[in-house]
Amino acid sequence: MDSKQQVVLGIDIGGTNTVFGFVTEEGMIIADSCMLTHGHEPADKFFPRLFTEIDKLRASLDKPLELVGIGVGAPNANYYSGRVEQPPNLKWGQTDVVEILSREYNIPVVITNDANAAAIGEMKFGAAQGMRDFIVITLGTGLGSGIVINGKMVYGHDGFAGELGHTIVIRDGRDCGCGRNGCLETYASATGIKRTVFELLCERQENSILRNVNFHDMTAKMIHEAALNGDVIACEAFEITGEILGMGLADAVAFSSPEAIILFGGLAKAGDMILEPTKRSFEENLLNIFKGKVKLVLSELQGANTAVLGAAALIWSELEEKKVFALTS
Amino acid sequence: MDSKQQVVLGIDIGGTNTVFGFVTEEGMIIADSCMLTHGHEPADKFFPRLFTEIDKLRASLDKPLELVGIGVGAPNANYYSGRVEQPPNLKWGQTDVVEILSREYNIPVVITNDANAAAIGEMKFGAAQGMRDFIVITLGTGLGSGIVINGKMVYGHDGFAGELGHTIVIRDGRDCGCGRNGCLETYASATGIKRTVFELLCERQENSILRNVNFHDMTAKMIHEAALNGDVIACEAFEITGEILGMGLADAVAFSSPEAIILFGGLAKAGDMILEPTKRSFEENLLNIFKGKVKLVLSELQGANTAVLGAAALIWSELEEKKVFALTS
Repeated sequence: MDSKQQVVLGIDIGGTNTVFGFVTEEGMIIADSCMLTHGHEPADKFFPRLFTEIDKLRASLDKPLELVGIGVGAPNANYYSGRVEQPPNLKWGQTDVVEILSREYNIPVVITNDANAAAIGEMKFGAAQGMRDFIVITLGTGLGSGIVINGKMVYGHDGFAGELGHTIVIRDGRDCGCGRNGCLETYASATGIKRTVFELLCERQENSILRNVNFHDMTAKMIHEAALNGDVIACEAFEITGEILGMGLADAVAFSSPEAIILFGGLAKAGDMILEPTKRSFEENLLNIFKGKVKLVLSELQGANTAVLGAAALIWSELEEKKVFALTS
Repeated sequence: MDSKQQVVLGIDIGGTNTVFGFVTEEGMIIADSCMLTHGHEPADKFFPRLFTEIDKLRASLDKPLELVGIGVGAPNANYYSGRVEQPPNLKWGQTDVVEILSREYNIPVVITNDANAAAIGEMKFGAAQGMRDFIVITLGTGLGSGIVINGKMVYGHDGFAGELGHTIVIRDGRDCGCGRNGCLETYASATGIKRTVFELLCERQENSILRNVNFHDMTAKMIHEAALNGDVIACEAFEITGEILGMGLADAVAFSSPEAIILFGGLAKAGDMILEPTKRSFEENLLNIFKGKVKLVLSELQGANTAVLGAAALIWSELEEKKVFALTS
């Protein structure tokens, strides 16, 4: 008798799309799909829709799989409580996602936020394979971070560790959505670089294609394209973003002395344009004992299914640990 | 036949004094002693002197002990390499302390820096008993830190993690001995509060007993005594020191979300005078999700033998872990 292939279900719940897929322990995505999240909808409408879509995907497969666990990445998700707590783009309030999914599928379910899922994804399938101490920085609308120390995800006492986007990089600096000032993410994120462009459009005289775009319409992608075409303002915005990101990351090194910091997410897709100025500033701002020792690299998981891989890696890691524990206890 | 009592030897090597003692697993110091370090002396003169003193102490005991391990706290000590590396107040260069002590006593030896030893001391015998996530801040000449996450000391990739004294709290702020500017320890340490007093003596008009003391002679203890006597400049210096320390600690929370932060060392002996302004600023500067959740407390290990207890706790923890490992493997 053939034994069925073991897979997990990786689910990434975003403000706009929810993507999910069946993933093997080696990180192969057997099948994946997506649906609109409809953030205005309550959770008790969302999950039945999701279950239907998952069933459809499963039914479409040519051979049956053994589903052994579910990993979920979601905004404001807490690993310990299993809940998402007041996610900014979803009208869910507090929702116990682990409970809902466990009841439906009766297998182990784990949840965390997208930056932590990305970190576990890099550890299992990406740039951090074999590393025990590293930090993943997600440069999206905001700046998220997933920290691994001694081979383990850092969740902290309450599950909310890893808020490097809200460390203060410039005292009394830019207003932040968190109500404070000068947080790293107000400079180093898709929103941060846009703000920097507007600062430069005010301060500088050079012509720029970005002078034709209003604040709401401008995106990090536009800035990247303008920079590729040699737009002086756009290039300078990447320089400044990298400079300030490098300062923030240098402070993070003083905390945990990681082997590497991995840049992930939308802004990281600009490649060397963001990596090079960040590296220069990072090295310049590091405490002497750390200079030249910490790798600063781009994610090796860039692609459409990164989020699914991260969520899948989360549950695979959990299942492995349980196996080890079962063997030794 | 009576089995001999098991003890470890805790050794704290400081720039001025070296203290050592025999400590039980419950944290009882059976006997302790000290000697001058003579920092100008090379290591190969220091250790024979130390061995003689240890032998004397052991010979003075009324019943024999079973020595099962040695823990050492020393400046610039690296847990992984077993070496102290260019300690600032000792003419030792690179010295493999673990090798020297292992050769002499033929039992397990572990070394780390004083802040990490303090953290392990708090975990085993002090304010952090039962905690898995906390940070110890040592407020001495500089600011050291020992970070525990998931119940384990954070040494980082290279053994140099926990340099919170060298995170930048005020961009382009005060000159630091590390060659950079605005490091937390230039404000929040015995040296930092002295610098703040001199800033206030310049800015303010109030009379102060501290106007009679030159920079070299002034100590944190003098400032504390002046503050106890209601000296306005001294009181204000504690306020400012606490305010800036609170800012720095709030950023550390965003990293690892600890259950508690424990203040240790000379300046922490000022008690509420430093704790209260630090607490106020800490709460004010915390990201919303952390407010009201993180304890900020004074060390419960204050006393003459703290350093010996910390070094002893380091080796006791290591021996315990080996025992657990031996049982499960």
